[in-house]
Amino acid sequence: MDLKTRIDVAAGRRPADLVLRGAKIVNVLSCEVHDGDVAIVGDRIAGIGRYESAQVVDLDGLYICPGLIDAHVHVESSMLSVPQFARVVSAHGTVAAVTDPHEIANVMGTEGIRYMLASSKHCPVFIYVMVSSCVPASHFETAGADLDALDITPLLSDKWVLGLAEMMNYPGVVAGDPQCLAKLAASADYVIDGHAPGLSGRDLCAYVASGVASDHECTTAHEAAEKLRRGLSIMIREGSQAHNLDALLGVVTPATADRFMFCTDDKDVADLMSEGQIDHMIRRAVALGMDPIIAVKLGSYTAARYFGLRDLGAVAPGRLASLTIVDDLEQFRVRKVYHCGKLVAEDGLPIEQPGGEPRRLTLRSSVNVKWIEPDQFVIVATGADPVGVHVIEVKEDRIDTERSLEMITPAGGALHADPTRDLAKLAVIERHQASGTTGLGFVRGFGMTGGAIASTVGHDSHNMVVAGMNDADMCAAAVHLVKIRGGFCAVHDGRVLADVPLPIGGLMSDADPATLSDQLDLLHQRTASIVKALRRPFMALSFLSLSVIGKLKLTDQGLVDVDRFELIDLLAGSA
Amino acid sequence: MDLKTRIDVAAGRRPADLVLRGAKIVNVLSCEVHDGDVAIVGDRIAGIGRYESAQVVDLDGLYICPGLIDAHVHVESSMLSVPQFARVVSAHGTVAAVTDPHEIANVMGTEGIRYMLASSKHCPVFIYVMVSSCVPASHFETAGADLDALDITPLLSDKWVLGLAEMMNYPGVVAGDPQCLAKLAASADYVIDGHAPGLSGRDLCAYVASGVASDHECTTAHEAAEKLRRGLSIMIREGSQAHNLDALLGVVTPATADRFMFCTDDKDVADLMSEGQIDHMIRRAVALGMDPIIAVKLGSYTAARYFGLRDLGAVAPGRLASLTIVDDLEQFRVRKVYHCGKLVAEDGLPIEQPGGEPRRLTLRSSVNVKWIEPDQFVIVATGADPVGVHVIEVKEDRIDTERSLEMITPAGGALHADPTRDLAKLAVIERHQASGTTGLGFVRGFGMTGGAIASTVGHDSHNMVVAGMNDADMCAAAVHLVKIRGGFCAVHDGRVLADVPLPIGGLMSDADPATLSDQLDLLHQRTASIVKALRRPFMALSFLSLSVIGKLKLTDQGLVDVDRFELIDLLAGSA
Repeated sequence: MDLKTRIDVAAGRRPADLVLRGAKIVNVLSCEVHDGDVAIVGDRIAGIGRYESAQVVDLDGLYICPGLIDAHVHVESSMLSVPQFARVVSAHGTVAAVTDPHEIANVMGTEGIRYMLASSKHCPVFIYVMVSSCVPASHFETAGADLDALDITPLLSDKWVLGLAEMMNYPGVVAGDPQCLAKLAASADYVIDGHAPGLSGRDLCAYVASGVASDHECTTAHEAAEKLRRGLSIMIREGSQAHNLDALLGVVTPATADRFMFCTDDKDVADLMSEGQIDHMIRRAVALGMDPIIAVKLGSYTAARYFGLRDLGAVAPGRLASLTIVDDLEQFRVRKVYHCGKLVAEDGLPIEQPGGEPRRLTLRSSVNVKWIEPDQFVIVATGADPVGVHVIEVKEDRIDTERSLEMITPAGGALHADPTRDLAKLAVIERHQASGTTGLGFVRGFGMTGGAIASTVGHDSHNMVVAGMNDADMCAAAVHLVKIRGGFCAVHDGRVLADVPLPIGGLMSDADPATLSDQLDLLHQRTASIVKALRRPFMALSFLSLSVIGKLKLTDQGLVDVDRFELIDLLAGSA
Repeated sequence: MDLKTRIDVAAGRRPADLVLRGAKIVNVLSCEVHDGDVAIVGDRIAGIGRYESAQVVDLDGLYICPGLIDAHVHVESSMLSVPQFARVVSAHGTVAAVTDPHEIANVMGTEGIRYMLASSKHCPVFIYVMVSSCVPASHFETAGADLDALDITPLLSDKWVLGLAEMMNYPGVVAGDPQCLAKLAASADYVIDGHAPGLSGRDLCAYVASGVASDHECTTAHEAAEKLRRGLSIMIREGSQAHNLDALLGVVTPATADRFMFCTDDKDVADLMSEGQIDHMIRRAVALGMDPIIAVKLGSYTAARYFGLRDLGAVAPGRLASLTIVDDLEQFRVRKVYHCGKLVAEDGLPIEQPGGEPRRLTLRSSVNVKWIEPDQFVIVATGADPVGVHVIEVKEDRIDTERSLEMITPAGGALHADPTRDLAKLAVIERHQASGTTGLGFVRGFGMTGGAIASTVGHDSHNMVVAGMNDADMCAAAVHLVKIRGGFCAVHDGRVLADVPLPIGGLMSDADPATLSDQLDLLHQRTASIVKALRRPFMALSFLSLSVIGKLKLTDQGLVDVDRFELIDLLAGSA
């Protein structure tokens, strides 16, 4: 819509395309709620006041908020493709999500990032990308890509790229690591997001002085207050795992609210569908006593401002007509969502746009393994005496692990799983270069009685992770994941109990949210017949290879003692 | 200073260049006052906490604020050159001024704007430029330049240009005038400042919808509240003439403070020297009851944020070490000013930087008049009967005028000034194209007893304005201004009583502030011998040609009936 037409509509010289009437407007600029028609022409708000149109929608006392913005989210964590993710969160009032394609970048590099950018077109949500800063995340595992400053620079010129994603290697930044500094320098004219759990004092100063502008890892009010004081904008996070809202809310005052935003970081499809996204955070913040207008401001305007998205974040003339309409500011039930002047969701359901089908893009299979054989899973041990092995101890809903030492007696020249001691075998198979590199170990905590489970989601390099009680089932599970181009599966006695195909990078489904959710439910239900001790065994499995969070992890290169930051032998005697 | 060094200093691995110790830090991000050493390396703050340096300055309980920012100022109104302006305001704690070179642009066009940009280098203040949007300001006068969208575009790519200056032609924007829209479209990716006194309702929506982002013309709380609500950032103004702070302060709340800034717009050298600039506004705001931290925030951070100046506006690691240090937050007496890590002012006096002399640039004389002759001032009238003439009525400290009708009897074929009725003659001589075009008329209100006064400051086209009681003195005054390359002068019986040379565009002095101030004092003192009714006759004179503010004005093209928006004849009978 041209400027002249917009001005003509605003001045009342020609009718609007659409007028929203009878609602209360949540004004995050003046921090008040007021009446007024919202006149829309093309994709933008022309005026607020008294307006006419051939199309008037009476909102009868509903509240019009600025469309919501998730300031930091990994779409891959939803396991949905970008268009399907957009449909789900749009129905929850989100109009823009700032994403870090960290997972797919670790698998597919810039090809993965560009795929995310391309597949986000014609979605009911603006998907902005921050370029992943830490690929690979660790040098103890073989990732699918290695992005340095030279790879980041060309991506920054894309209109939908806003800057550098969470600089997770905060020790590297604080130490002045040249690779980190080169990435920061390449992004100096853009927004640079941070990620620095627990960083404090002079190290925090060093991190902020490097140009990092935000943090979403605060877990205590004290931590958030210090980071706020030192100049970081604070993204308050409520995801599937991390729940920081309750702890941080007290730090937000009306005067400092402009330095806070809301984000989900990692939230799976089931939680997105049942709870919502930023709408859920506003609801919870208001329930905890936050002024609803401030809560809406944190869920829209402050994120828009932080990222320089001048067209979003407020119900005001000239801004995009991307609006979230709710019943009231306490329940915050999303009734209608407009994006760029079009109704895109109503009462929780997406509204298909004529001619606006999301692009369907193909991406080559990411699961590139050397031919898998059962003997790949054998842990060789000669002699007849028990040997000491390092065992990873997994806990429900934790991404870190404990560690222990167990004595295992070799049998047939190998070490085996032992259900009587809840000892399963664990394998991490490199799946990017088809190198055949495989790390082997033991894990306790699954309560596995037989069979095997496998996943191509294996943070952060997303090699294939397999846990099982015998080599044949482990091999069968791994082979099945190759056949379905990645995903999750459970195998017992050579038979696939259930699977969830995640063919996009081995991380994301191409199914719709309901189908994916049903597949996940079935998988969990059937897996429960062989895994007795964990409710979410695939979540646990996917973090057993995350070698940047302690204490003991397994990558394709072997066991990682995270505290000592080195690879160690599986056998304790030789360590 | 490279990033590595800054991080090393922040982390405490190497000493800072300078540590400010023992002060209280006014933190506009966390909205609190706290202790801490401020460690500076090169031009930036490295860290805040405990730091060491070979150079430690003990500030002994003083308050460190972010360097102050004037969000909108016409340097020309100070009558100082840019470097001299910078010295004055720097001593008052200003580290950045966002300027609109509207006056010199009307005289010298893009050459004038580029002169301002060039002469702002090596100053103790960052001078940012917004490209003047309304040159000429009116079609009833001959300006020195005509800037359209094509002229604006190349300027926008300059690093020190932030966007389009106050779009004063708000009726044009609201009406959808193609010239206005072209300028807005050319600047759409930049900041666009507004200027819309009294605009309200749907017309205000139209103005905001056009992309304008701010307004500095609010005079009532009601007006500011409506503009805030509709999406404009509000610049609260305290200049030499306009005083809006008291009226608007009540609209600012902690929650909305991020939408307000401070500015001076027009402030002359005497007021800048005696009162200050943004420091004066903070002092006054605090005296009126505003939370001092919020007041400092409006004088620094919010302006930095609005203009996207990420390196300014807060005392935080990584930001420029541009700091204003004051005794306390009530008196707000500026004790030390650091800019980019260097001490640039102390106790009201600038500190010369070794090797940092401001550039001295020459600018060709702007006073281009056809040869001036006494008969140029003759108002021809034949016959012996009194004729009715339109008379401009000037008032002290007002930029608008009243109007009246007077009967004057011709003598010697002409109409003359009449001291018994306080009727002076007024002439406006085109001074850009040397066309000889001259507007003639009468003005009442100066209380002039004889002689003439003249000025090359004549808003907005800055033609030469002369008021006098006889043609000979008017001619002598005009000729004197040509000789001194522009400025002010007073003449009596052919003798120059006093003058103030303003050789830079006929608008600005090349003298230092004290000299200019003394020159102005002497001028006013001597002019008082012939001008009895106005304390500031040159201020009044300079606005008699401003043809966009009513009721009756004189330009080089003749009398302008501003309300009817047309040129009219001097003689009432023929109107």
